[in-house]
Amino acid sequence: MEGHTVASFDQDLRLLAEKVSAMGKAVEAQVADVAQALAEGNAALASEVAGADAAIDTLQREIETMGVQIIATRQPVAVDLREIVGALRIAGDLERIGDLAKNIGKRAAAFDRQGNLGHMGKGVTPIAGMAVIQLRDVMDSYAGRDLAKADAVWRSDRELDSLYTSVFRELLTYMMEDVRNITVCTHMLFCAKNIERIGDHTTNIAENVHYIATGAMPAGPRPKIDDAPETGGGA
Amino acid sequence: MEGHTVASFDQDLRLLAEKVSAMGKAVEAQVADVAQALAEGNAALASEVAGADAAIDTLQREIETMGVQIIATRQPVAVDLREIVGALRIAGDLERIGDLAKNIGKRAAAFDRQGNLGHMGKGVTPIAGMAVIQLRDVMDSYAGRDLAKADAVWRSDRELDSLYTSVFRELLTYMMEDVRNITVCTHMLFCAKNIERIGDHTTNIAENVHYIATGAMPAGPRPKIDDAPETGGGA
Repeated sequence: MEGHTVASFDQDLRLLAEKVSAMGKAVEAQVADVAQALAEGNAALASEVAGADAAIDTLQREIETMGVQIIATRQPVAVDLREIVGALRIAGDLERIGDLAKNIGKRAAAFDRQGNLGHMGKGVTPIAGMAVIQLRDVMDSYAGRDLAKADAVWRSDRELDSLYTSVFRELLTYMMEDVRNITVCTHMLFCAKNIERIGDHTTNIAENVHYIATGAMPAGPRPKIDDAPETGGGA
Repeated sequence: MEGHTVASFDQDLRLLAEKVSAMGKAVEAQVADVAQALAEGNAALASEVAGADAAIDTLQREIETMGVQIIATRQPVAVDLREIVGALRIAGDLERIGDLAKNIGKRAAAFDRQGNLGHMGKGVTPIAGMAVIQLRDVMDSYAGRDLAKADAVWRSDRELDSLYTSVFRELLTYMMEDVRNITVCTHMLFCAKNIERIGDHTTNIAENVHYIATGAMPAGPRPKIDDAPETGGGA
């Protein structure tokens, strides 16, 4: 099917990619909003993120339906098939990121009721900011089919993990210093962990941009340094 | 395509379902092993689980490839299409459960080096046991296309969440009672959270068994009670 003799096939693929990018924008906004809510101690914004997940789930279902329909009607092969399978996988990761942002939003909103949101937000703001940038970069790499950029995001997960590890250790220290810090720090631990998991899903997306372009996953072991169980690394 | 005039189409679907069931068995074994490792304070078994994830990932990729190929070559509709899409989604959830079991295994193995595995295991053994049973039941409901059984698992997630909430509160109390408990209890918190997330993925599988059978997700809101952010509920 050189040059796709069926013109509307190209259109199908373009529409699918556009929907994935639109979903990416919606999820980016969720993550940026929750990062801002944490940084500013803004409970109203946090509550907003906590309630804005349904539209993202709907986009994922639509992408799945479109992808399956294109596979069934066009029987794509090679890069075209990778384009679709990659889009479905990326949508799956975006949906998980949306869930994680929603969970952080809920937690932050509840914190505010205890008057502790400003305090908590400070600890996790730097990781949240980094997660926002990585997600934006990886979705740019998808939109521009920019392999070098995707690989750069893939490698940068290490930095997010490193930041997570230092936040984790710091929080444990605070808890040990004063038992009154335990509840707030436990929430911060879970928020930090959720942000680190957003980073993992961003890395998955980078792998799938690489897969779409090359047909293979990035070479070498995944650059994770958070596997040390003492910091809650891994899944 | 009444009765599937192409006999090998039925065979394709059967092979796909068998592979999903085989993947389910492998993941069930991971979860059961890690639950046993926690209950017995068995670090060797925990390490084994920590290292046994690759085969499961391979099964997921094989299922994805098979599913895509069947969709492309057979252009299935209605229940047949749901059968395939459902299988792909279930494989995705099984892969995540395998990851979570692996992470718990790593954490438990590291604990043992600190001489605390027995202590830690006791706190999370009841939830781990419940997660094993639910996963087994949901994979049985998939193999037997047993809608009632799938729905029962879907409803039972509430019990796992309730158990998680009480473990979470108990652990916070221990941490406040004695700062020397903080490190070990933090690990237990993350293990408990990972087990609760295994329950969430099991619930997703139940939803997909329901979807395959009926074309819709179970009616009503998902029976979650762990949304209270103070216990680390949600994603």
